[in-house]
Amino acid sequence: MIRLTIWNEYQHEKINEKIASIYPEGIHTAIGKGIDSTEVEVRYATLDMPEHGLTEEVLNDTDVLIWWGHRAHREVADEIVDRVQKRVLQGMGLIVLHSGHFSKIFKKLMGTSCDLKWREAGDRERLWVVDPAHPIAEGLGQYFEIGAEEMYGEHFDIPAPDELIFVSWFEGGEVFRSGCTWHRGQGKIFYFRPGHETYPTYYNKDVLHVISNAIRWAAPRHGARPVYGNAKPLETISPKNET
Amino acid sequence: MIRLTIWNEYQHEKINEKIASIYPEGIHTAIGKGIDSTEVEVRYATLDMPEHGLTEEVLNDTDVLIWWGHRAHREVADEIVDRVQKRVLQGMGLIVLHSGHFSKIFKKLMGTSCDLKWREAGDRERLWVVDPAHPIAEGLGQYFEIGAEEMYGEHFDIPAPDELIFVSWFEGGEVFRSGCTWHRGQGKIFYFRPGHETYPTYYNKDVLHVISNAIRWAAPRHGARPVYGNAKPLETISPKNET
Amino acid sequence: MIRLTIWNEYQHEKINEKIASIYPEGIHTAIGKGIDSTEVEVRYATLDMPEHGLTEEVLNDTDVLIWWGHRAHREVADEIVDRVQKRVLQGMGLIVLHSGHFSKIFKKLMGTSCDLKWREAGDRERLWVVDPAHPIAEGLGQYFEIGAEEMYGEHFDIPAPDELIFVSWFEGGEVFRSGCTWHRGQGKIFYFRPGHETYPTYYNKDVLHVISNAIRWAAPRHGARPVYGNAKPLETISPKNET
Amino acid sequence: MIRLTIWNEYQHEKINEKIASIYPEGIHTAIGKGIDSTEVEVRYATLDMPEHGLTEEVLNDTDVLIWWGHRAHREVADEIVDRVQKRVLQGMGLIVLHSGHFSKIFKKLMGTSCDLKWREAGDRERLWVVDPAHPIAEGLGQYFEIGAEEMYGEHFDIPAPDELIFVSWFEGGEVFRSGCTWHRGQGKIFYFRPGHETYPTYYNKDVLHVISNAIRWAAPRHGARPVYGNAKPLETISPKNET
Repeated sequence: MIRLTIWNEYQHEKINEKIASIYPEGIHTAIGKGIDSTEVEVRYATLDMPEHGLTEEVLNDTDVLIWWGHRAHREVADEIVDRVQKRVLQGMGLIVLHSGHFSKIFKKLMGTSCDLKWREAGDRERLWVVDPAHPIAEGLGQYFEIGAEEMYGEHFDIPAPDELIFVSWFEGGEVFRSGCTWHRGQGKIFYFRPGHETYPTYYNKDVLHVISNAIRWAAPRHGARPVYGNAKPLETISPKNET
Repeated sequence: MIRLTIWNEYQHEKINEKIASIYPEGIHTAIGKGIDSTEVEVRYATLDMPEHGLTEEVLNDTDVLIWWGHRAHREVADEIVDRVQKRVLQGMGLIVLHSGHFSKIFKKLMGTSCDLKWREAGDRERLWVVDPAHPIAEGLGQYFEIGAEEMYGEHFDIPAPDELIFVSWFEGGEVFRSGCTWHRGQGKIFYFRPGHETYPTYYNKDVLHVISNAIRWAAPRHGARPVYGNAKPLETISPKNET
Repeated sequence: MIRLTIWNEYQHEKINEKIASIYPEGIHTAIGKGIDSTEVEVRYATLDMPEHGLTEEVLNDTDVLIWWGHRAHREVADEIVDRVQKRVLQGMGLIVLHSGHFSKIFKKLMGTSCDLKWREAGDRERLWVVDPAHPIAEGLGQYFEIGAEEMYGEHFDIPAPDELIFVSWFEGGEVFRSGCTWHRGQGKIFYFRPGHETYPTYYNKDVLHVISNAIRWAAPRHGARPVYGNAKPLETISPKNET
Repeated sequence: MIRLTIWNEYQHEKINEKIASIYPEGIHTAIGKGIDSTEVEVRYATLDMPEHGLTEEVLNDTDVLIWWGHRAHREVADEIVDRVQKRVLQGMGLIVLHSGHFSKIFKKLMGTSCDLKWREAGDRERLWVVDPAHPIAEGLGQYFEIGAEEMYGEHFDIPAPDELIFVSWFEGGEVFRSGCTWHRGQGKIFYFRPGHETYPTYYNKDVLHVISNAIRWAAPRHGARPVYGNAKPLETISPKNET
C-alpha cells in the first residue's frame, strides 16, 4: 500500500468561477479521484489547513507527496518547506506538477531559479516519449496529446535531469522538457509539466496515467543504510579468509 | 515470474583443479543455486552448447541474462553476440559479471575498450554503497566486504555510467567503479565487478544478494511503444477540444 | 592549431542534379569553406579515396573528424571503422552530422540501433538551446531556425546523452534531441541533426556557427595518463610525511 | 584574464597555533600564491570583512570564486549566500574545497544534506583519476597522493555529479568521490575534497595543479542567451525559404 498525500494550494478554485467550474472540488480532488488507486491510500492537504496540512505526523505517514501551487507560493511557511525537504532526503517521493516549478520546495531541491517561458493561449501540446523504457512511460504510445494548455518553453532553468522522459511540442513553436526525474538524498523527484488551472487537464486519461505510474515509481524502497559522521576509531577490517 | 538465463563459458572449471574444487558444477550453477529464486525461473547456457545455448527461442524466452566469461571471449560467435545485443535493445536485462568486462557483448554495448588494471594477489575488497537509494543496494549496510579477490583498478574505460552504485576499495591501494548501470535501447545493463574464478566469491551472501536485487531491477517493463521509420504523411493532429 | 578532417561519402552530389546544384563541390567542401577556420587546418576525405582517405597517417594527424554519410554506410570498410573508433578512444573528437546517425562508426560507439523517425516534407525546424552555458551554444540566441529541412523525430534510439544542448521543434508536430554529446574513452562525440542533402543547410550561418563551436569543443586536451593491465607487484605507497 | 576571488573564513589560522604555523597568512593566501596565476588576477575575501568581502561589486567583478569554510558556516549571512547563488546561476564559476561541503552556499546549490563520514587520523590518501580526459585532470598521472589527510568517506549525500573526476582511496578502508562537477544555471561548480586545516595540503603541487586546472575550467563562457517569462504574442515564425 502506497500512502499518497496530494497537496494543493486550493486558491484559484475558490475565487475564480471558470476554474471552480472545471475543478469544483479542487485540483487535488480531481487528481485523487482520477488516478489508479489500486494499492494507493489517498489523503489531501491544502494551504489553509494548520501547518498547511503537512504536520510531522502526516509527512512521516506519507510515501509520495504530489505538489500543485501557483499564486500562493510565498504563503507556504519556510519551516514546512524545510520539513518536506528533510522527508524527501529521507526517501519520500515528490511529484511536482506544472506551476509548482516555482514552489519553494522545488527551488530548494533544485538549487536553481527554475524559471521558464510561458504563454496562456490554449496551445495544443504533444508530449513525446524520449525514454520509452522508463516505468513512468509504461503503457503509453509514442506520444500523447493535450488539446489546449498553457505553453511552457525552454530554457527551463533546472539542473540537467537524471532522466528525461517527455519532451513537449507546442503548436506555437516551442519545446519543453516536460517529464524529468532527479534523485535527492534517498528520495525521488518527478516534475511533470501539464496542468494549468484553466484547462481540464487533470481529467485527461493520459495525464492521469502518467501520474499513476509516477506514484509507483516514486514510492520509497528500503535501500542501503548509509552512516554519517565521525568514523573513529578505525573500523575493523575483517580477516582475509572470511568470505 | 522472471525468466533468468545464466550464461557461463564454463572452461576454467573443467581444466583447472583448484577452480573445479571451488565450483564443481560451474560458476553458473553456484549462482543459480545461490540467488533468491522467489518468482525467478532459472535456466543455464554455456559456450559448448549448440549456438552457445542462446538460440532465438531461448533469448526470446529470457527476461534477464547473466554473463560470465574470461578465457574464451573470442570463441563466442559474432552472430550470437549480435543476437544478444538485439534482445537487450528490445528490453532484455543484462548482468555482466567480473571478467565479462572484456566480453564481446559488453564491449559492443559500451562502444569503448572496457580496459582496466588488475592484480591477482588476494586483495581484500570493500564495496561501498554510493547510491543507497538504488534498488540494487536494497537491504545492504553501508558497505560489504570480500575477504580476498582479484583486484580491478581504475581507470576503467567505460562510458560514464547512468548510475554508479558501488565503489570498491582494495587493500593494495586501488579503487574501482564496481557496480554500474546503463540503459541501451529498452534494456537495462548492470556491471558487477566481483567474481574471479579462483575465489569462492559466488558463495558470498552479499554478492548473491546484490545479484538477486539486480535480476529484479533488470527485468523488463512494458514501456511505451516507440515508432521508427518514415512518418509520412503528416500525422493528423487531433482537434483542440479533445482532451 | 586544430587539425580538422571532414569526411563525406560524396555520392549524392555526383549522381543527383538537384543535390549537385546545391553542393557543386560536395557537402564536405561547403562545410570546410563555411566554418570559422581561425586556427583550424582543414583536410578532406571521401569514400572513394584509398582507405576512404582515412589512413593511419591521416587519422594520427587529425584532432577532430567530421562525418557525413547516408546512402553508402555499408560500403565503409569495417577495418576503417575500427581504426576511427580506436582514434576516438585515444582522444580524437568526432562530429557526426544528420544521416550519419546510421553510420557504422556512430552505431559502434553508441551500442544502440540509432533508429529514429523521419519525413522528407520540408518542415520548418527550430532548434532550441536547452543548455545555454555549453561551449557549443556560445554566441547563439535562445533558438535558431532552418526554413525547410527533413524531419527527424523521437524516439531516437541512443544512449542518454551526457549533455543535451539542442531540442528541435518541427512544424509537423515532432521533437528531436538535435544536439547531443557523449564521451567515449578519451574522445568527445557531438551529434548534430541538421543537414539533409536536398536542402542548403550547410550554408546556414547558425548551423555553421554551431559546427565551428563544436570543432573547438571536441579538440583533444592533454588529459591524465591512465595505466591499464597487470599492476603487480603492488605499487609502492609513498611514505606518510611526503606531501 | 580570469578574475579569481578566494574566500576563506580565516578563523582557525588566527586561534590555533599549529594551524597558524602551517598557514601563517591564511589558507587563502597559500592557495593564491601556490596556483598557476598566468592570466589569473587574484583577490581575497574573508568572513570578517564588511559583507564578508563579497559585495555586489566584488562578485560582479569575479569570474571564479573559491570557497573554504569550516567552523563558521553559520556566521555567513544568508543575504550574502543568496547573492553568491545568484551570481553562480548567472555564470560565475564556484570551487568548493574540503569542509566547504557543509557551507550554506554548497548546500543551497545542491539541495541535499551534503553529509559524509570523517576521521582525523592522518590517513594516507590516493586520488585516482576516473575521467582522464577531463580538463581538470589535465597533466596528471593515473593518480596522485597526499601523505596524510583527514579522511572523508562515503556515503556523500550529494546529487549524482554531472562528472566524476577523482575517487579517493584512504588507507583506513574508505573511498570518496573527491572531485565532482555540477552545472547550475549558467555556472559551473567543482567540489574538491582535500584540504584539512591541520595538514599542509595546499602546498602539495598536485593539489595546486588541480585547483589551477579547475579555475580555468570554471571560468564563464559567453553562452547562448535564454529568454524567460511571458512569451506572448506568438513569436513570428520566419518564412520557409529563408535559410
